[in-house]
Amino acid sequence: MTKTINLNVDLGQRSYPILIGSGLFKQEGLLDAFIGGRDVLILTNEQLAPLYLEPLQKLVTGSNVQQLVLADGEATKTLETLETIFDALVEFRFGRDCVLLTLGGGVIGDIGGFAAASWQRGVDFIQVPTTLLAQVDSAVGGKTAVNHPGGKNLIGAFHQPLCVLADMDTLNTLPERELSAGLAEVVKYGLLADAELFDWLESESAALLRRDQERLQHIVRRSCEIKARIVAADEREQGQRALLNLGHTFGHAIERCAGYGEWLHGEAVAAGMCMAAGFSERLGWIGAEDVARIRALLTRFNLPVDPPRVDPNEFLAAMSLDKKVIGGEIRLVLLKKIGEAVVTADYPSHELLDLLSERFIH
Amino acid sequence: MTKTINLNVDLGQRSYPILIGSGLFKQEGLLDAFIGGRDVLILTNEQLAPLYLEPLQKLVTGSNVQQLVLADGEATKTLETLETIFDALVEFRFGRDCVLLTLGGGVIGDIGGFAAASWQRGVDFIQVPTTLLAQVDSAVGGKTAVNHPGGKNLIGAFHQPLCVLADMDTLNTLPERELSAGLAEVVKYGLLADAELFDWLESESAALLRRDQERLQHIVRRSCEIKARIVAADEREQGQRALLNLGHTFGHAIERCAGYGEWLHGEAVAAGMCMAAGFSERLGWIGAEDVARIRALLTRFNLPVDPPRVDPNEFLAAMSLDKKVIGGEIRLVLLKKIGEAVVTADYPSHELLDLLSERFIH
Repeated sequence: MTKTINLNVDLGQRSYPILIGSGLFKQEGLLDAFIGGRDVLILTNEQLAPLYLEPLQKLVTGSNVQQLVLADGEATKTLETLETIFDALVEFRFGRDCVLLTLGGGVIGDIGGFAAASWQRGVDFIQVPTTLLAQVDSAVGGKTAVNHPGGKNLIGAFHQPLCVLADMDTLNTLPERELSAGLAEVVKYGLLADAELFDWLESESAALLRRDQERLQHIVRRSCEIKARIVAADEREQGQRALLNLGHTFGHAIERCAGYGEWLHGEAVAAGMCMAAGFSERLGWIGAEDVARIRALLTRFNLPVDPPRVDPNEFLAAMSLDKKVIGGEIRLVLLKKIGEAVVTADYPSHELLDLLSERFIH
Repeated sequence: MTKTINLNVDLGQRSYPILIGSGLFKQEGLLDAFIGGRDVLILTNEQLAPLYLEPLQKLVTGSNVQQLVLADGEATKTLETLETIFDALVEFRFGRDCVLLTLGGGVIGDIGGFAAASWQRGVDFIQVPTTLLAQVDSAVGGKTAVNHPGGKNLIGAFHQPLCVLADMDTLNTLPERELSAGLAEVVKYGLLADAELFDWLESESAALLRRDQERLQHIVRRSCEIKARIVAADEREQGQRALLNLGHTFGHAIERCAGYGEWLHGEAVAAGMCMAAGFSERLGWIGAEDVARIRALLTRFNLPVDPPRVDPNEFLAAMSLDKKVIGGEIRLVLLKKIGEAVVTADYPSHELLDLLSERFIH
């Protein structure tokens, strides 16, 4: 058993702790301090319900705890599912003082968080991420959303949780493909902010794939530290928070062109980061050897490093629907070196189409 | 022509002006300072589009201005309509820097405001209220929402506009029933915060019903001043902002029991205020003569002063779905005197059912 780490996301009155450890789900009453007898709705999916619903209910004592089990997968992240959640809240007669608890990966966290943001104009919620991707990224920072057929996460809110509970034990049962998808986001933190983490990932990749708990806890901690620092400085993504979108503008276009749910988000981000790296190389910002290192590490983690075959213009159109497009310009997160990224729209506009035509979309 | 009044809603970085005057829609480029060339989507309804769309488009120069015309009425305030708005935003490829402009009454303002709150996790919007009710109440303060079959405004967000533009000229074409509905909210401000305003309404009721522009401007100004003060002190309704819900817990139950759209919101609030006043009298807080004055003034304004006939238990159940219910207690806004209200759940619980059974639901 690893020792529990308690990190703080510093957002003034909206500050909250991230608890990272193992055996957390066995600590009866652990969440009482946050919930204090209020009504609780646990949102989870069909896969996780039989595994964790029972232990999780014991983390809360003295509350009316209800549950809603949703279908699994990205296709669930719609306004329609949101309506199902509201129907349940009405049925249970849960008021302004209820607490939502999202038990699951990014899909459950995103949709449950948005339900909490908009139910009665905002109620409390607690994130209990059970995938590596959610633990290192989506459960932290208060971004919540559902998808629109026209684009990912187009509808949502900034709504910070009361706390985040990341239990390493949940990673034991995670499918390999999802473990890899989570590792893609960890590589992202190394690329954008921490060259040392990137080096460490290269040397520890085998142990991570073996799910060594201590090393997994280390990457969750380090990822959350980097994300918490950036979110604290720029909660609403007016500036540097956009750095966290490294690989995401390309990645969202991949998800969109392939059809939502075909690629895991982390997989699309992996290939997206390779595209961002390739474009950074094309602009002369990083060298071919950096690109090769990035592709090698992601390949090591069993992640895709190239986008699917699509028409370049279609791909460009999908990119331009991304939220990072301002005034028609496609702003990209690109690399100055491994460990340093910048947000920019300052590149010759034909270069992007050339890149797509020549290098990636064969 | 009246002189334009410029009020400020003091919310720090989210402060914004309310412009109250006549002939505002004739001032070409009036909104340029707020919009600065960004993409604009005007949301309005079928009734207002032919009257005001053209002049309104001229208030913005140098922008790509699109429009979406929705059906009129409370039944439009659904998640489904919200989806229509998002579809339009995708179709027009409007990004994070677009501005929504809501031209209409409370329905358009509430749903358009919530669309702005959640599109790309929040874009700017401008309120252009064209009903008295919206000008004195719903367009100011940042409450946005849609309805759920289980209750009014159950889904929404706090999202402050960039500015509010109240043109008195729009009140000339307002149906009488809607003028009266707006006056109900003005009476509310008198009751909860300003005995002098209540007196003034009693003496000026005839001129107001004749739509004297100067007097209408006076009540819009005074209402916005009171609301702006309360919202500035308590933006997210943790405390005193709940006073603004005088008549609303009863009123929402009326709207729900009668079926949304049967009663105008202001009509339900009028009868709801009479119920709150009756309950305050029953608790010995105000006298029978106060109740009589309130009923007389609302009657003068052609407003209902009694709820529809419903089963008291059904009515109570509808009340308890209201957002102001905390931990199962029904918190009510009641009167200490004309000009002073309090939020309380401190009353014998049987009294409420007794009141419903004996006095109102015959």
